Amino acid sequence: MSGSVYDGLSEGGDDPRWAFGSGFEDRAADIVAPVPAGTEPADLAEYCLMLGDDALVLSHRLTEWVSNAPELEEEVAIANTALDLLGQARVLLSRAGHLTGRDEDALAYWREVSEFRCVGLVEPSDDLDFARAVARLLVFATWRLALLHRLTDSADPVVAAVAAKGVKEVTYHRDHAARWTLRLGDGTPESHRRMQDALEWVWPHLGELFRTTDTERRLVTAGVAVDPADTREEVDAVLAQVIGRATLTVPQVRPTGTIGGRGGRQGVHTEKLEPALVVLQSLARRHPGASW
Amino acid sequence: MSGSVYDGLSEGGDDPRWAFGSGFEDRAADIVAPVPAGTEPADLAEYCLMLGDDALVLSHRLTEWVSNAPELEEEVAIANTALDLLGQARVLLSRAGHLTGRDEDALAYWREVSEFRCVGLVEPSDDLDFARAVARLLVFATWRLALLHRLTDSADPVVAAVAAKGVKEVTYHRDHAARWTLRLGDGTPESHRRMQDALEWVWPHLGELFRTTDTERRLVTAGVAVDPADTREEVDAVLAQVIGRATLTVPQVRPTGTIGGRGGRQGVHTEKLEPALVVLQSLARRHPGASW
Repeated sequence: MSGSVYDGLSEGGDDPRWAFGSGFEDRAADIVAPVPAGTEPADLAEYCLMLGDDALVLSHRLTEWVSNAPELEEEVAIANTALDLLGQARVLLSRAGHLTGRDEDALAYWREVSEFRCVGLVEPSDDLDFARAVARLLVFATWRLALLHRLTDSADPVVAAVAAKGVKEVTYHRDHAARWTLRLGDGTPESHRRMQDALEWVWPHLGELFRTTDTERRLVTAGVAVDPADTREEVDAVLAQVIGRATLTVPQVRPTGTIGGRGGRQGVHTEKLEPALVVLQSLARRHPGASW
Repeated sequence: MSGSVYDGLSEGGDDPRWAFGSGFEDRAADIVAPVPAGTEPADLAEYCLMLGDDALVLSHRLTEWVSNAPELEEEVAIANTALDLLGQARVLLSRAGHLTGRDEDALAYWREVSEFRCVGLVEPSDDLDFARAVARLLVFATWRLALLHRLTDSADPVVAAVAAKGVKEVTYHRDHAARWTLRLGDGTPESHRRMQDALEWVWPHLGELFRTTDTERRLVTAGVAVDPADTREEVDAVLAQVIGRATLTVPQVRPTGTIGGRGGRQGVHTEKLEPALVVLQSLARRHPGASW
């Protein structure tokens, strides 16, 4: 890449912020940081996949709105949200890949459904029902913000760094979803009805967010992870506040169950995940290696 | 929006950078700035539509890559490029809307094909051929950067502001496309062949980029616009440098003609624009008003 012609084109083009979209100054160094004392690398990799897959799959679902948003401003907001989550996913998948000898693209494009570790909340398409997009983002961002706040103190430097940056990002996401919940809930009778329906659609997935896995239990002891059950009180309180202020009602629905105690965190997914992965993985799989 | 509950959620949520995606500190004030002396508002509106529609339609074409990029890093890069262009389009369409009594969403979602003012270069889908995406972005960004550099001195404050911000953005876009052109052109025989094919695909659209419209001619006199013909020498030189260095050949093809002297700038489009607009406009049109 020497020579005046190309160098002339490159001025300012080496900004890693743009190139990686992650905001990490020294990304490669972070990814290979030593595993904290008392932590099994396999556990840490699994935990990074949990947090990373949640972000990756919801990012994908949000991009279904690109070129489909009700207004240009909202398209920009949704696309930015999706990019923030994709950025979090990339770092977490890279960390997991480092610990297991694979790269982020292998983990994103070449795992089977049962190898994904995301919660059911992020799996279904909202079918371009805007109230559903808002309701899911409200729940997801409220929960994830509660997690990330606590994870800024994680003993794992990569998890801590993702959390520190993610807190700022997800604060916006939560705020954005809360504003729309208020606007729709306290809007017309029609918007109120649709927003309430959307809450009913999302609510069965709430319970799973607070189920603690064995992996998390071990990592809590090592100071790497937080127990998601500890976030329930905060999440319930925030959601109740927003929903009440929007003149809506907190749904009373039974949570989606597990199969033999296994759910998304153990690779037991809703039937909605596979179609998403088909789209997400299709091009990469059609061109394996893709280095032509 | 008073009250402690919601205020508590909003901390930091009023950052206009994120909300608007435009980077404008005081966007509303800019949009309504007075029309420069000696300028017809209708001409300025038309010019903003030219520059805005180029960005809007290419942004849409780039988003076809979202969830389809060959690697996660490239997905982030393409999505950022699309968002930059969408941001430019939003400001330019808002300016045009202010001058004609419509808002940006009306202009994006409710114009007919013949009311669009984009060049043919941005209209076709690249059909998820990555080399085509690269070739088009290389040509588009090289041309737009040459335009925006000159437009930073525009007598219209909105055009000048879009240009000042856009120069930084489009410098990245051009650099990114140039890097890929080098990597693919100077890569394997297969990648070389595909990249050359992609240049042949894009080249017939080159001539239109430098055709000066009557509107532009009048605005050049007023110091608002630049004559696109004046950018030809720079654009040809940069493209020849990149293409030569990539061991590729500058295509020798006849430019796409006009119909009675009319092309994209006059609303005479390729047959590829309409399908793009169907997608871009479908949701907004299905839910007119969309304020439920």
